[in-house]
Amino acid sequence: MHKLRYGEIVSDDPEFIPEVTVIRLPVYRRCLVELTEQGITTVSSARLAAMAGVNAAKVRKDLSYLGSYGTRGVGYDVEFLLFEVSRELGMTTDRPVVIVGAGNLGSALVGYSGFNDRGFPVRAIFDNDPTRIGISLGDFEVMDLALLGEVVERDEVAIGVIATPPGSAQAVADALVEVGIRSILNFAPCILDLDRSIAVRRVDLASELQVLSFYQRQADPLGSQ
Amino acid sequence: MHKLRYGEIVSDDPEFIPEVTVIRLPVYRRCLVELTEQGITTVSSARLAAMAGVNAAKVRKDLSYLGSYGTRGVGYDVEFLLFEVSRELGMTTDRPVVIVGAGNLGSALVGYSGFNDRGFPVRAIFDNDPTRIGISLGDFEVMDLALLGEVVERDEVAIGVIATPPGSAQAVADALVEVGIRSILNFAPCILDLDRSIAVRRVDLASELQVLSFYQRQADPLGSQ
Repeated sequence: MHKLRYGEIVSDDPEFIPEVTVIRLPVYRRCLVELTEQGITTVSSARLAAMAGVNAAKVRKDLSYLGSYGTRGVGYDVEFLLFEVSRELGMTTDRPVVIVGAGNLGSALVGYSGFNDRGFPVRAIFDNDPTRIGISLGDFEVMDLALLGEVVERDEVAIGVIATPPGSAQAVADALVEVGIRSILNFAPCILDLDRSIAVRRVDLASELQVLSFYQRQADPLGSQ
Repeated sequence: MHKLRYGEIVSDDPEFIPEVTVIRLPVYRRCLVELTEQGITTVSSARLAAMAGVNAAKVRKDLSYLGSYGTRGVGYDVEFLLFEVSRELGMTTDRPVVIVGAGNLGSALVGYSGFNDRGFPVRAIFDNDPTRIGISLGDFEVMDLALLGEVVERDEVAIGVIATPPGSAQAVADALVEVGIRSILNFAPCILDLDRSIAVRRVDLASELQVLSFYQRQADPLGSQ
């Protein structure tokens, strides 16, 4: 077992994998799945690098953290590397998910099969608004947030998804941590203040759209008027 | 008008704003909205930095690109800075959006009011699968991808959202660019090969979940078995 804690630099730990590498592992995994589908059995670091959009030295360095060095002049065995990356990403086990916030985004997410398809089955959706509790969203009925702890324990939930307005996100994050959740995917446009041992990833659709809007304005001759 | 093209370094352009700064502008904007809601009229770079989760020197540097320097000992005028950041982000105008891909994710996105609420109204959703074309998704009817150009021109669409499987994403991106789209939000788990003048932002839910899964596995004593 690794001793790594999220966000912490533990450079003297031989099993430490830096976060920048962790973030690229899903990209490599996707490339390896694609190669498998094409029936390709070995891949050079140069080819994997081109597919992943990084340079070959970085690929070799990243994979060396997994103990994978490939064979000189041959490259990496695709199937074995896919197994190693998937194992490192903890994808050999399902990671049950709960969603908190049954507004527009939460309702959209609960109907999105991508969670389930990728080994992250949604177990429940919660809200604390009495007008939302009990309503049906596809296969789910919105549950009272007061029952969060019970569900997390019963279904061995690993990941909490926050789909609330930003003003409620910190309180929801604290509630998730309180009931034992260690991994949070935050869709609320705010930065959460949590213990560094809690893994947090943020998906901020509004910010992404605003960045595109910035570049759109640059391209538009009327944009700066 | 700025001469900046996406992804290009134009350091001799006095109006150039680096991408790392652009990416932080939505964060500052959110903080400023929050301050406005609290009735706060001036803010120091230190306070804004704490809210945004960056350091104060970076805040001052970022805002200097917008020509905002604040007043020594007083700070920034919240309302004026919010106006400047919003203007820089091109948020004074609506940016119409089309979604391509009417599968689970596209269907979820078309029902998500966050686009419209934030000045990015969805105008249409497209697919090329005859079994999907014509079906109703909330207020929308899935349109034939062959009509993309017509809709983009008619509704002055600014942003294309790709919600297809990865295998179709490049062809869809090319089709969007072909009909004049310059800004793309890509939900497909792949890297698009496009001209550098096209602004692309990627939202990869699967990768975010896999990164969380990695840290979950670290935290789980059974994780490495």
